[in-house]
Parts: sequence; C-alpha cells; structure tokens
Amino acid sequence: MKECNKSMHGFSKINHVKTKKDMTVNELITQMSKSGVMGGGKIAESVDILEEMITNKDCKLFMGLAGAMVPGGMKQIIIDMLNAGQIDVFVTTGANLTHDLIEALGYNHYKGHANVDDKELNKKKINRIYDTFMHNDVYTGLEAFCKKTFDTFPKKELNITEFLWLLGDNVDCENSILKVCAKKRIPIFCPALSDSGIGLQVWSYILENKLKILAFEDMKEIIDIAWTAKKIGVFYIGGGVPKNYIQQSIQFSPHSAEYGVQITTDRPDAGGSSGAQLNEGISWGKLASKAKYSNITCDATIALPLISAALKERLE
Amino acid sequence: MKECNKSMHGFSKINHVKTKKDMTVNELITQMSKSGVMGGGKIAESVDILEEMITNKDCKLFMGLAGAMVPGGMKQIIIDMLNAGQIDVFVTTGANLTHDLIEALGYNHYKGHANVDDKELNKKKINRIYDTFMHNDVYTGLEAFCKKTFDTFPKKELNITEFLWLLGDNVDCENSILKVCAKKRIPIFCPALSDSGIGLQVWSYILENKLKILAFEDMKEIIDIAWTAKKIGVFYIGGGVPKNYIQQSIQFSPHSAEYGVQITTDRPDAGGSSGAQLNEGISWGKLASKAKYSNITCDATIALPLISAALKERLE
Amino acid sequence: MKECNKSMHGFSKINHVKTKKDMTVNELITQMSKSGVMGGGKIAESVDILEEMITNKDCKLFMGLAGAMVPGGMKQIIIDMLNAGQIDVFVTTGANLTHDLIEALGYNHYKGHANVDDKELNKKKINRIYDTFMHNDVYTGLEAFCKKTFDTFPKKELNITEFLWLLGDNVDCENSILKVCAKKRIPIFCPALSDSGIGLQVWSYILENKLKILAFEDMKEIIDIAWTAKKIGVFYIGGGVPKNYIQQSIQFSPHSAEYGVQITTDRPDAGGSSGAQLNEGISWGKLASKAKYSNITCDATIALPLISAALKERLE
Amino acid sequence: MKECNKSMHGFSKINHVKTKKDMTVNELITQMSKSGVMGGGKIAESVDILEEMITNKDCKLFMGLAGAMVPGGMKQIIIDMLNAGQIDVFVTTGANLTHDLIEALGYNHYKGHANVDDKELNKKKINRIYDTFMHNDVYTGLEAFCKKTFDTFPKKELNITEFLWLLGDNVDCENSILKVCAKKRIPIFCPALSDSGIGLQVWSYILENKLKILAFEDMKEIIDIAWTAKKIGVFYIGGGVPKNYIQQSIQFSPHSAEYGVQITTDRPDAGGSSGAQLNEGISWGKLASKAKYSNITCDATIALPLISAALKERLE
Repeated sequence: MKECNKSMHGFSKINHVKTKKDMTVNELITQMSKSGVMGGGKIAESVDILEEMITNKDCKLFMGLAGAMVPGGMKQIIIDMLNAGQIDVFVTTGANLTHDLIEALGYNHYKGHANVDDKELNKKKINRIYDTFMHNDVYTGLEAFCKKTFDTFPKKELNITEFLWLLGDNVDCENSILKVCAKKRIPIFCPALSDSGIGLQVWSYILENKLKILAFEDMKEIIDIAWTAKKIGVFYIGGGVPKNYIQQSIQFSPHSAEYGVQITTDRPDAGGSSGAQLNEGISWGKLASKAKYSNITCDATIALPLISAALKERLE
Repeated sequence: MKECNKSMHGFSKINHVKTKKDMTVNELITQMSKSGVMGGGKIAESVDILEEMITNKDCKLFMGLAGAMVPGGMKQIIIDMLNAGQIDVFVTTGANLTHDLIEALGYNHYKGHANVDDKELNKKKINRIYDTFMHNDVYTGLEAFCKKTFDTFPKKELNITEFLWLLGDNVDCENSILKVCAKKRIPIFCPALSDSGIGLQVWSYILENKLKILAFEDMKEIIDIAWTAKKIGVFYIGGGVPKNYIQQSIQFSPHSAEYGVQITTDRPDAGGSSGAQLNEGISWGKLASKAKYSNITCDATIALPLISAALKERLE
Repeated sequence: MKECNKSMHGFSKINHVKTKKDMTVNELITQMSKSGVMGGGKIAESVDILEEMITNKDCKLFMGLAGAMVPGGMKQIIIDMLNAGQIDVFVTTGANLTHDLIEALGYNHYKGHANVDDKELNKKKINRIYDTFMHNDVYTGLEAFCKKTFDTFPKKELNITEFLWLLGDNVDCENSILKVCAKKRIPIFCPALSDSGIGLQVWSYILENKLKILAFEDMKEIIDIAWTAKKIGVFYIGGGVPKNYIQQSIQFSPHSAEYGVQITTDRPDAGGSSGAQLNEGISWGKLASKAKYSNITCDATIALPLISAALKERLE
Repeated sequence: MKECNKSMHGFSKINHVKTKKDMTVNELITQMSKSGVMGGGKIAESVDILEEMITNKDCKLFMGLAGAMVPGGMKQIIIDMLNAGQIDVFVTTGANLTHDLIEALGYNHYKGHANVDDKELNKKKINRIYDTFMHNDVYTGLEAFCKKTFDTFPKKELNITEFLWLLGDNVDCENSILKVCAKKRIPIFCPALSDSGIGLQVWSYILENKLKILAFEDMKEIIDIAWTAKKIGVFYIGGGVPKNYIQQSIQFSPHSAEYGVQITTDRPDAGGSSGAQLNEGISWGKLASKAKYSNITCDATIALPLISAALKERLE
C-alpha cells in the first residue's frame, strides 16, 4: 500500500460510479454513494437521510414545496408521498396549489419552449412558465369552480388550512394534491395563498360576498406540531416561504430538526433564505447540532424523481 | 472603413469601459452604457429605465423587495426612495420588515463570516444570515414592543396593510422602512407576513388576545392601484412572493407594466418565478409587449447601490 | 374535452413523472421524457440525442470533458464509453489526465468535506478539491513515474497527442483513461496540458533533459477528423478549453455538428464560452441549424451517471 | 446600549450603504465597506486588497483573465492596468487575445441581443457571444495579418510568450493588450493558445510553412517569477486555464500568495477549479494561510469597472 494512502486512514476512498445495463435507480444511487462526493454524493446521502426520516416512527416530516413543481411535472411524486403517509406537515406556495387545482378541473399544462417570442404567445393567450405552457382560459374554469365552491362553505371565517381543506373537499378528482390533503386531513399550510390564482379568486369573491380568511390562525397548528414532535425531519424542495415558514415553526421548539434535505439551485452567497445552506439553521436552533443533513444543488425536476424512485425501492 | 464593419450597420459598436480618477458613479454607468453588453450593459440600461419610471408623472412604481436586504445593508437606499416619493406601492417579505423593526428598536446586525462553525454560534446565541450575525436576544425586545403595541390597536380586525401602518405608527425611530411607510401611508403589502419574526409575535399574541388579521382584504387596494394606474413600472429586487404578488396584481389590469427592472441571482431554467426573466411576463400580460425592461443577474448588494447612486446624480 | 385544451392542439401534454419500486434508470428517464420540461425534460432529451449520436455509424462523437470529473468519481463512466468505442475524439483537461494517472499509479482520492479549515489540511499535506481530498505526496510518485517514462520516449519532439499516447503506453493499469486512449489509439487532445500536474513534470524534466512538445501540431489531426466526418455529434461535460477546442475544430468544416449535448452549471449571461448555450454555436456554424441539441444545467456528477445508465440499457 | 448589542462586542456593526448625489465610485465603495457583508462587502474588501497588492513594492501581481472580457467591453481597463505597470504576470485565454487582435486590426464588436434566432444570424454571417455580435469576415483580415506577420518571425522555434511578443510587435495599434504586453515585454502566458482564432491561424500556417511553437518552454519563466518573488498577489477575473495555471506556478514556490481576489459567477459546489473558492488554495499551498483574500461572485463586467474606478481614485 502506498505510504500516502496510509496517511489518509479514516477517510473513505472514492470509488468511481459504475453504471450497468438494466440497473435500478437505487442501484445507481448506491453507486453514487460509493463515490460520495460533489452533487452525486449529496443525492445519495439525501436518500439515506430521507429513508431514516420516513421510517423513524417518532419523526414528523415537514415538507416545504416551492418552485413551479406542478407545471414541472412533479405532482405525482408529491401525491404518492402524501398518500403513503410520508408527509406529516405540508407547506407550499399558492402557485403550486393553483396549478394542481387547474389540472384537477380538467385542464393541462403543455410542453413548450423557453426561447420563444412572448409577444406571440400573448396574442395566442398562452402563458409561459419557462418551457411549460398553459392556456389563459383556464382562469374561466377556475373562477366558476371557486365561486360555486366558496358559496357552499359552511363557515364564513376560516384559517388558511381550513380554507384549503374545504376547497379540496370539493375537488372532483382523486389525483390532486389539494384533494389528498383534504381527504386525509393532512395539515397543509400556504402562508402566501393570496399570492396566487386561488388568491385572485378569493379577492374577486370577497368584492361581493362575505368570506374572511385569517392570516395567522393556523400558525397555532404548525407550531404545535413542531413543539410536540419527538423528532423532526425537514425536506425542502425549493426555498421561498415554505422553507422559511417551516424553519421558524421549529426555531423555538424544544427539539430542532434532526434530519434535513434541501434541493435548490439558489446560491448561498446572495444571502437570501432560499439559497441558505441547511447548516446556517444550526446557529438559529432550526436544525440540531447533531442533525444529519444534505444540501443538494440541483434542478428539482432532476433530483426529486431520482430520490423518489430510490426511496420506493427501499421502502415498499 | 472595414467592409465587414459596414455590414454591421444598424448595430452599436461596443466601446470599452473607460474608468478614470474621481469619476462619479453615474459617469461610470455612462461608460457601461457605451459598452452596453453583458451584466454591465444591463445595469446601465436599468438606470435609464428607472429614471424614466420615476420621472414619468403618470407612472406608478411598484417595488418588490425580497432577500436579506436589511441584514445586507440596503435599508437606507430603500428608505431614501420611499422618502423621495419614488415608490408608489411597496411589497416585501416579513423578514425584511422584522429586521427593519429590530434595528428601529435599537438592535444591530453585525458583520460575521459565512465559513464558521454554526454549532459554536448556536452556543453563543448568534443567528447567522450568510455572513451577517444577529444576537438571538433581539426577540425579547421585539416581543415586548409587539405585545405593547398590539394592545393599543384601535381595531381588532385588520388587513395586513392596516396592521403594518399601525405597527409603523408606534415605531419610535424615523429611519425605518416601517415608520416611513406608516407616516406617509405608502401602500405596503406583505402577503406572507405570518412567515416572519413579526408573524411569530402575532401568533404569540393571539394565543391569549383577540386580533384578527385578514389575509386577502388588502388585495383590493393593490389591484385597484394597478387597474387605475395610467402607466405601471415594476422594480423587483429579488423574487419570491413580492415579485409574484405584484405580477398577479397587474395580470388582468387594463395596462400591463411598461417598465421593468429585475435584480436576481436565480436562474431561469429551474422554472421558478423568482428566476424567471421579465419577458416571460409578456406572455401573461404582466408586462406590455412594448415594455422597456432589463433583467439583471447580480447580487443586489452590488447592483442596488450602483443604481441608487447613479439615479440620485440624475434626479436630484 | 375542455375548450382551451383544444386550443393547445399540437403541443404535448405534460404527464407527471411516475416513479415506482424497482424501476430501472431508463424507465425513470422515460418518465421524465413524458413530462418533458425543465431540467428533467432536458436530461431525457439528451439520452435520445446521445443514443442517436452513438448508433449512427456515420457520426463521429467528439467528447469534451472538463471539471473535476476524476476526483468527482466519474472516471469509470468515461472509460466504459471509450472502451465501447463510443468516443471518436476525446478532448480533456490536464487536470483530469493527471488525476487519472495518479490513480493508475496506485494512489486514491478520498471523500472529505467542503466546509473545513484549509489551514489544517495544509498542515496535514491534504489537498482539497471541493469535498474531495488528495494527499500531496502523490506528486512524489508522479514525478518518479514521469521521469522514468519520459526517458524511454523514442522521439524527443512530439505533439501533445503523441506525448499522451506514449505516456499511456507506459501506464501499468488497464482501468485508466490515459491507458485506454493509448491502447486503442483514440485521438486524445489536451491543448492546455502545460496547465496540470503532468505539465509540471514536463517542466521539471526539460530543465535538465531534452523534450520538445509542440503546441499546435495535433490541431491538424482534430481538424482533419472534423472536416472529413460525414456527421458530427458533440458531448460537452463542463466547458472550458475542451468544449471550445472542439467547437473551433468544427467551425470551418463543411458539416456543422448535427447532435449536441452539454452538461454545465455555468450561466450563459456572464458571456463566457463555458456557460454559452449550444444554440449560440449555430450563429458561428459550429452547430447545424437543424441540429438536435440539449442544454443541461446540472452538476455532471448527477446528470452523467443517469445518462450513462440509461444509455447502457438502450444500447447493450 | 442594548444588552445584546454588548454581547456582540468585537464584531463590526453593519452600517447601511448611504448613496448621495455626485458621489465618486470610491465613495460608494467606502459605503459598501461600512456595511461589509454579502457581495457588496466583498467588492469593497477586494479594493483594499488590490490596493495593497499594487502599492506593495515587493509584491508581484499575477493576473488571470478568462471569459469574454474583450467582447464584453473590459479591454481598456486591462490595458490601463498593464500600462500603469500594475500587472507583473499576465495569463489569459486565446480568445481574449484573438478578440483584442481583431479590434487592433480595425474590426469592431457590436451590441446585439441574446434572445435572437441564431439561424438568422448564421445566414448573415454574424457570430454571437451572448449579446455581443461579431461579423465572421473578421477572420479574413486576421488570416492576412497573421500570415504576413508569421513570415517575418526571425526564429522558427518559439515558446508561446515569445510568439505573442513577436505578434504584438507587429500590431499597428497602441491600444491593444497584445501590443502593450509586447512593447513593455510584460510576461504574458496563454497555455491554451491553440484553442483560439490565433491558434487556427497557426494551424493554417504550419500546414505549409515551418513554425514550431513549444508548449512547455515558457513554464520556466512563470515558475521562476513565482519562485523568486518576495510576495505574490493573484487577481483572477474568471477561472479556467489562466487561474489554474497561475495557481500551479505558485503551488511549490517558497512563498504562497499573500493576496488574492477572484471574480467569478461559477459555483464552488460543482467541484471545478473555476468556481473553487480561493481558500481551497490554502490546502494546496497556493494561497498562504494568512493571506488576505476575497471571493467575489459577480459578473465581471459589473465588478471590474467598479473596482477599477475605485483603485484609480486611490492610487493616482
């Protein structure tokens, strides 16, 4: 053995990733784990951490979902996790819920191109989300559904969780994030719901009807879950409000998060919460000093399917 | 003249940026304008666009401010713009308002390092925001102030704008974003206010006291301003909820934004709203087809001071 | 069918990625293809394009490999492609060849951490490449090998390709990029070889010995291949010199590249060649106007294993 | 004084950047320095470090220049530094030298757009570099100049530095990087010169004429300067070969660099040398443990003009 290899005693040797015909996704992840460095290493590490989060009965998993994940084709993966009971607290953006609802109403998103003439799209009433297209007339159906549904609400003063559950109850499509959260009464939070297509429907409705949505009431619920959990795991897909809202719910709780996985393309050095590395949360008490965590820098539409398939192989 | 230079008739020649001793910031921007390409060109272009936004009497300027801008030392620039009457609608994150309030209460942020041991910071009760430090005990003062102030509120049911104005009225420090917005009754919006230190104070307060904050009521105001404005200009510093909330307020208004400047480090190709180029908004009707706009990819703590100093030179 | 879905006739509906237990990597890629948008869509698209590049007998595949791909655990994937005869022209950095040679000599790279005290590492003679560690004493073995090998060279004036083949001939390890390129006489190019550990060994050697390496001679070979190829495909892993050198070899050839795949984390808007989108090459005649191409924004240690496993499933 | 402000004794308070009418660039940098955090703080810090590098008579300043800096309008700033005697060793890419030479021959670069149809540009023979345009016929003039000049070379075997000096001697334009380096015999290095338009001219020439360019000979010179310097400062604009080549020249020298400034938009977590933080170099002995250094994440066409103007104010 080379002398200087001996000097590296205690460190793991990097084994090169070996691919082969017909390998399963988890076999690939196992190979990435044997290398263990850079982005591939972090993906592999995150599968281990998520497996532990999910299988530990004492652990409450808080998922924060931001970014254009429904237009980006990630809806089914989230629904599968919700249906499998893997997500104990779900925090997301109004946009993801709006796009989920739009699909539940029978509309589609379409594959387009990013390098197009937006003026031409505008003439055709096609809205662009990077390389995803959506016809603007979906708002007509959305408006009709919301108006009709809001009218049925038994209470006229609701917190946001209650509002979303009631909305989900009226969705006539099983394969919907909103529907699954409603049906299973999964604690769902969306602090910036007013910032979304659903938000615009509420605005339109309350111009002529009575409906009060309270902005702070459901904080009691999420903080209560964080404070009473034996263990906490966090899984942030994108940053934004969902990540930060989970972080602050944990900040003053008796137990900081012991597991953390984050997928983002944002940079830490610009200083914003979305790009902040998970370990920054240790200083705040949001993450435990001894936590297992992994900061993945990757487009979630690449990382999430990989992680999801590997987890199913391990857990099912 | 070279034959192939003639072939480029109609295009502007790139003049190299010439720096000199004692040049003013606007002189530098003028040099960048003469080059006109890549990031420097976009900064220069944005100063022209902002100058036009601000000096056009018919134009309502909507600013969206996200990211750690108060911890990052950008507070004064925002306050100066608010005081100069340059911002007609101000949308920001709960975090920026919380850090502004913390400073207004006499606490400071401090210069730290990003590459530190977060466990050591945690022991010392120092919270880290990339390379900015804040002592955790600021929450004690924040809590006392909020409790005392909430008690004085004349109404117990408020929308978020009203809540922030009342809060600002009680701030005993002139050099504060909250104070200036309150004093001048500048329309201020913070859809995700619950996601912040101030939000936590509301949560704590409503555990034992009555205070209802309505999540959607102030949408009427921002949409009304957008719908009645003769012209609209948007200035997004960071993405997140502030940018998207302004965009959706304009989306269905008779006039799309005719001016747009955006500063972000997020990538467009991950698909999220924060990194989306302004021209994507043309497809949605958020930005006019003939709008003047500039997408700056830069840390705002670099770009904003440059732009601010150049604008003051031109406008004052 | 919803009226506005009809309006989107001609566009593909986005199907959400569906993961399942024990799915193979290519099955996952097929799912990503059915969604087709954002990063995941680009990965899927690139597998199709690479499959076509490799199976088209008329197509010469030029691979450009930059970045810390050997320290990052990607060596085996490259070796497998070289051994399978899938790479017709191989252009890389001196660093990748140096790290490959170091491993061929019996030294290892190790998994470390990025957030460490570099001063401590320096005291321990451990060199860091982000989160990969390498002991500094590898240079002793490298020097001995190079000195001994250079002495055996039959010619004292060589171009860089010849130099690398002769070096590879002397490598006593089959699982090495250098060895495989030498054994199979795969055209290998490394324009900036002087910028590497191997380069330093040449420098040291020519202080006292005669060895002339000509910088431009092997351009004849790569340009000749580009000019005589019936079809060209390019596969850039990272940017830098390897990408640009391939591009310029094609620029004036009768046939521009008809297939292109690029994996990089660099941004286009900073203007550099490494981050430039492949379509920019169309303006230069480096890529054909009708080329099939895919710009992947991803850490190559994530994207490359995925692509490699899927290709093996399809091709073997 | 607030109790918890006292606890932060030893840390600098963040003062918010204050802009004002007619402020000079250095006054703005001074304001950024008083804030001191995030990107703006790093820009300010780098001006201090560069001022010290330049004014310290014992310090040799090594500049590495990569990226599309000539097409990006940064030529004059580099020429001014070369003329002022501030750069002792200059390492760059073949592309920057080619674009510099093209301008010296009377051709221009033009301001274009990034979001264009590259197929249309190709038909018009316009080459695109992000949003900079160059007519393809510049190569005709480049070829004629090179052919004529190479014929005059007194020696037919040259290292790259000698080659570039001889080329520069024949440039009939004072405002050129090549010309200034030649005239002042500033040590200029370009390890990957074959990877450039100039490289293509050498290739074309040696198909029919005798001219041997040695790839490794000038390493003696740069390593000699690094080994005999009392102090070393490094200034990397972009990464690539220029940065790495300087780093390796210093790696085994008695004195590691004591000052370092880097401007790049590349990420560290992908593992490549271009995005690596300067402190990584401490582990290798490329940077001294006690070095003063600053890692700027910014488009160089924004950061470099700022830094240059501030330095002129301080130094002239």
